[in-house]
Amino acid sequence: MWLNGTSELIEHLKRKGAKRVALQFPEGLKRRSATVAAALRDAGFEVILSGDPCYGACDLALDTLTHADVLVHFGHAPVDEQPKVIFEPYAVDFDVAVLENALPFFKGDPVGLVTTVQHVHLIPAMELFLQSNGISCRVAEGGGRTPNRGQVLGCSFAAAKASGADEILFVGTGLFHPIGIALATHARVIALDPLTGSAQEVSGDALMRRRFAVMEKARGAKNVGIIVSTKSGQQRMDLARRLASLTPAAVIVTMREVNPDELLNLGFACYVNTACPRLAYDDQVRFPVPVLSPQEFEILCGVRTWDAYTIDEIV
Amino acid sequence: MWLNGTSELIEHLKRKGAKRVALQFPEGLKRRSATVAAALRDAGFEVILSGDPCYGACDLALDTLTHADVLVHFGHAPVDEQPKVIFEPYAVDFDVAVLENALPFFKGDPVGLVTTVQHVHLIPAMELFLQSNGISCRVAEGGGRTPNRGQVLGCSFAAAKASGADEILFVGTGLFHPIGIALATHARVIALDPLTGSAQEVSGDALMRRRFAVMEKARGAKNVGIIVSTKSGQQRMDLARRLASLTPAAVIVTMREVNPDELLNLGFACYVNTACPRLAYDDQVRFPVPVLSPQEFEILCGVRTWDAYTIDEIV
Repeated sequence: MWLNGTSELIEHLKRKGAKRVALQFPEGLKRRSATVAAALRDAGFEVILSGDPCYGACDLALDTLTHADVLVHFGHAPVDEQPKVIFEPYAVDFDVAVLENALPFFKGDPVGLVTTVQHVHLIPAMELFLQSNGISCRVAEGGGRTPNRGQVLGCSFAAAKASGADEILFVGTGLFHPIGIALATHARVIALDPLTGSAQEVSGDALMRRRFAVMEKARGAKNVGIIVSTKSGQQRMDLARRLASLTPAAVIVTMREVNPDELLNLGFACYVNTACPRLAYDDQVRFPVPVLSPQEFEILCGVRTWDAYTIDEIV
Repeated sequence: MWLNGTSELIEHLKRKGAKRVALQFPEGLKRRSATVAAALRDAGFEVILSGDPCYGACDLALDTLTHADVLVHFGHAPVDEQPKVIFEPYAVDFDVAVLENALPFFKGDPVGLVTTVQHVHLIPAMELFLQSNGISCRVAEGGGRTPNRGQVLGCSFAAAKASGADEILFVGTGLFHPIGIALATHARVIALDPLTGSAQEVSGDALMRRRFAVMEKARGAKNVGIIVSTKSGQQRMDLARRLASLTPAAVIVTMREVNPDELLNLGFACYVNTACPRLAYDDQVRFPVPVLSPQEFEILCGVRTWDAYTIDEIV
């Protein structure tokens, strides 16, 4: 898309009257940044590249706008309103016939269909394929943090919930999204990796068992740091204040990158993560002490029942 | 000082009318943050702790001021004007008689005397000790990035230069400061570690040889990233723009933490560091490609002579 279309981007920037342009690439695309920067500089723009780590549109390099008229963010759709940011998604194609591998898993229909941002352009083709195989299919409209039809994020499964289906097909790589969908919707979830073609039914049970163990370990901690992200789309200070009010042992801690070294240096006995929800679920093994989700902390503080356990989403 | 004086800090904050207080500790003092936070919370303040890495007053957690009336920064003296920041230095004492170990190294006098912020309160006692041993001593007044008499930073040797002495005594830990002083002043430099008592004459020759090797490796690099820090006291965008104008192969790259992974991900063949000067000199072994100082890059671009090689300082 944009790699063939640097000329389109250049036209867009000229129409906007931008002279100084900041560029931000996520980790997987950073290697291309020197090439894109050179193309824009040759077209007459003053270019600044953001060199900080970036894993989503929740982490915009807005600090570059001190020195630039516009920020071009590659690889993600917007999670919030950002008038001075141009979002350039990165589309990854595949042959939708690979969905055949998911067909044997369906027990009925309709099936809810969701995917991640790099594949959302294939949603219409995937719908057609399923329909032509006799599966009626529901795709929720975009909105909130997921502006594209059928799009999910690791912190927002709204499109899966809004499909209203009892069976959901997630098309994408990795198991974090489909496990999150299972916990958020209580639907049957089929995960299809469109690049390898492997399909499987996914359950949240193993994650839940691991989380209960982490909660047990956190019980009785002598103090707790409530982590608040300073990233543009991850700041949940109101939530953090509410959580901190649940116990006198809590202190609010602001962090840009939540990493094990800093958690160790600060020395709290446990943390509650209000930054990117995946950090607690995916990275616990890297952390020196328990890192709880907001909902898990509420359960330990006695203000949420175990039955009301749910996966953390940013709304 | 401040550990005994949390009550003094509390009085100070009350006089200022602060209600919401942000706290920032450098890495070596971070472990104490939970205790100080608890004391302030018990005194009725709303407390926010900065959890990001911090290595100097050049790296203020100004983002916490979105949620706090005042930021208390521990362990360093200010490097710039910051009306909403309270600086709480951390004094490390020693017996000034340890300076006896440096006496045999002096070839004449006067001797310039400099130290780092945690020992500046001992400057008068050190002057007295030297004088009582027959050494006349020069201590430059504070100013610029080093507000205390006789204070040096890893990025500012102004107090050493301003002493005007041909022999300089540096009292402090590590060899980076005295090597920097040697390169910045061309004086004889004696380094005394006041905690171990070891004294030695220090030369910049070995560092220079390593730097020339790095410069040779950078020669002919196909592209170059000019690193600009986004930290409060390390931003040198004007310098970066001037350096970037020296070659069409340069792109300006903004970074908060300059770390090897990001330099590798970005994929430039070499970098020029306008952030904390120590990064290029101290951390080259960690970096995947050459990271030059501004002056070294100017030499390679032919706009500075080899004879004008000097150590990078922030002014």
